[in-house]
Amino acid sequence: MLAQQYVDMLSKKSVIRGLSEYAVARGKEIGYENVFDYTLGNPSVPVPDSFNESIIKLIGQKSSMDLHGYSQSLGIAEVRQAVADSLNRRFGMKYEMDHIFMASGAAGALAHAFRLVTVPGDEIITFAPFFPEYNPYVNLSGAVLKVVPPQTKDFQINFEEFEKMIGPKTMAVLVNTPNNPSGIVYTTETIKKLAQMLTDKSKEFGHTIYLISDEPYREIVYAGVDAPYVAKYYDATITCYSFSKSLSVPGERIGYVAINPACPDAKQMIVMCGQISRGIGHNCPSSIIQLAVAENLDITSDLSVYEKNMNILYDELKALGFTVVKPGGTFYIFPKALEDDAVAFCEKGKKYDFIGVPADSFGCPGYFRLAYCIETEKVERSLEALRKFVKETY
Amino acid sequence: MLAQQYVDMLSKKSVIRGLSEYAVARGKEIGYENVFDYTLGNPSVPVPDSFNESIIKLIGQKSSMDLHGYSQSLGIAEVRQAVADSLNRRFGMKYEMDHIFMASGAAGALAHAFRLVTVPGDEIITFAPFFPEYNPYVNLSGAVLKVVPPQTKDFQINFEEFEKMIGPKTMAVLVNTPNNPSGIVYTTETIKKLAQMLTDKSKEFGHTIYLISDEPYREIVYAGVDAPYVAKYYDATITCYSFSKSLSVPGERIGYVAINPACPDAKQMIVMCGQISRGIGHNCPSSIIQLAVAENLDITSDLSVYEKNMNILYDELKALGFTVVKPGGTFYIFPKALEDDAVAFCEKGKKYDFIGVPADSFGCPGYFRLAYCIETEKVERSLEALRKFVKETY
Repeated sequence: MLAQQYVDMLSKKSVIRGLSEYAVARGKEIGYENVFDYTLGNPSVPVPDSFNESIIKLIGQKSSMDLHGYSQSLGIAEVRQAVADSLNRRFGMKYEMDHIFMASGAAGALAHAFRLVTVPGDEIITFAPFFPEYNPYVNLSGAVLKVVPPQTKDFQINFEEFEKMIGPKTMAVLVNTPNNPSGIVYTTETIKKLAQMLTDKSKEFGHTIYLISDEPYREIVYAGVDAPYVAKYYDATITCYSFSKSLSVPGERIGYVAINPACPDAKQMIVMCGQISRGIGHNCPSSIIQLAVAENLDITSDLSVYEKNMNILYDELKALGFTVVKPGGTFYIFPKALEDDAVAFCEKGKKYDFIGVPADSFGCPGYFRLAYCIETEKVERSLEALRKFVKETY
Repeated sequence: MLAQQYVDMLSKKSVIRGLSEYAVARGKEIGYENVFDYTLGNPSVPVPDSFNESIIKLIGQKSSMDLHGYSQSLGIAEVRQAVADSLNRRFGMKYEMDHIFMASGAAGALAHAFRLVTVPGDEIITFAPFFPEYNPYVNLSGAVLKVVPPQTKDFQINFEEFEKMIGPKTMAVLVNTPNNPSGIVYTTETIKKLAQMLTDKSKEFGHTIYLISDEPYREIVYAGVDAPYVAKYYDATITCYSFSKSLSVPGERIGYVAINPACPDAKQMIVMCGQISRGIGHNCPSSIIQLAVAENLDITSDLSVYEKNMNILYDELKALGFTVVKPGGTFYIFPKALEDDAVAFCEKGKKYDFIGVPADSFGCPGYFRLAYCIETEKVERSLEALRKFVKETY
């Protein structure tokens, strides 16, 4: 018999995917360049040349065994050391190689983090708006995802509601800053207040509440924005990183788990990741990709286009009367729809080939997400469609 | 609190890994070339040049988005099509793209296969001797692994014992041919008999019993050996493949799940794999590696050294009086130890720097495994040590 839970999932179509497929199909009718497709968070800027050069160089230099052979189950030692060194240099941390586990992107990193600190039935709390894939990621691990309602005035943490939801079954709190879908970066004040509450609640409930920090957008932060390194503020922090956005290599599935050296049993937790891998069939990212990333840790793709696109969209949305908090990073912007029902709003936008994603599945009904990781020229052309849509509809 | 099941696993040291670490440490004392290290199944022949050439060519030809961008969650369409075409060409099957799911090596493929057809508490049966990693792979999925005792005269399936163990909770049967650790290939007769029994038992218990065929050694078959393509003989076959051994790329984590087109709901099962991935953080193998493998489907590394090594070892073992079944493939040979306790036997071999792995954890006490994926020159030099070991000890 087929496992029914996965059969059932097939009938629930992802809203993002559905709209993305609509945009592509519409593009076949009128030319994709005429569809203002803001649906997918797919990096649009190219990989740095040095990344491809590293691959070619490694092929020339390394033996077949060193390049394509089994890597240690926790990741290639020199790669883990290079990641630790880079984090220490950049954020003043004290990671050693033994605090780093190489993972297949953020999804792989999170799959390990959840299983490290929960058993089935335990609760993980996150904050709306949130990446909807957290639902299957957490719930299929056996833990239960609880979502704190959004604080829409600034999309920082709604501490009042958070305090009502945290309880003795809460084993971890999951944050994503810079945030998908809001584009907001949590301030140092927010992170400090969160750390204090987790410290207090850990004491109250008699067990460590871990902070799982999902940071794929860490390198996409706009000028002048305060973007604290989360683990600096709370000992029991499990940082989950992906190079997908910073190096524009989402298909290569490469990231890591970094456990704060100040976290109790930090090194043991990394070794545990190797055991978790055995159950979920993970067994490391590609060895050649690990080695190439290690040579490109302190650089990124040219990410400046995202801030440029954001400013163009933000100014126009404000001018048209949208309620919108200015993003501090990522490649998302998250305005309030012009009617209560953001699904209806986005549906009406289709008439103008302006395709955004309603945020009901992000835990924030009434809002919509625009993923502006597209060419600036297209963003500029989309403004006319947006204006027409708004003026003729509202 | 840390998840106790993974903490507990840390105290159980793998016998293979322990002996491998011993061999490496001993190598630092006397020179690794003087340690006859038969512990690890790590391919020793280089990757075909054409594989590295494909990577370099793809970097030159493809755009950053096409090369490193997100691949579809079931794998890159053209890669899935190429895999289907190759299997059809070679084995007379009728796979379509929609019967293929690209996975991170055999471990990733098996993780999906187990979750497709079992829910926690269901049973999966395999046959000793077996790859000990099947224990965590299956048991951490929530299913329960049951092991049929070995048929030591030829290491084909022990059908008498199998029939006693198969029952209404059996949802899948897991085979590995060519087999790690025995080196034996199941004959067409064995596969036919297995298929008949699964057909009869599926009818008796009122549900399909799936056959999961783990085939990482499929391309390493010696001259004149009958090596049937398992899925040809049973409709409900889920084939799990890895390119680790055929292309000597175990670090690249690339393989696939192929579901027999004749299997009920075959295409739906592939789509379900995409849902399973969301829970276990899998999200596809590396995109550049998928594309490179698709250009190298019908070739292999030069695997001839394995047969050469096997013949050298087999002849010497027979000459020394060992009971040993001649391998039909893989790079393993599996003799009976010269005393009942194979752990003690292997321990005594260390004195001669002849390092094999006792097979207790493979479900076959009293036997030991030699992984002869090493240089032929070293195999030849090891014979003197083996002779001395046997003559001075038994």
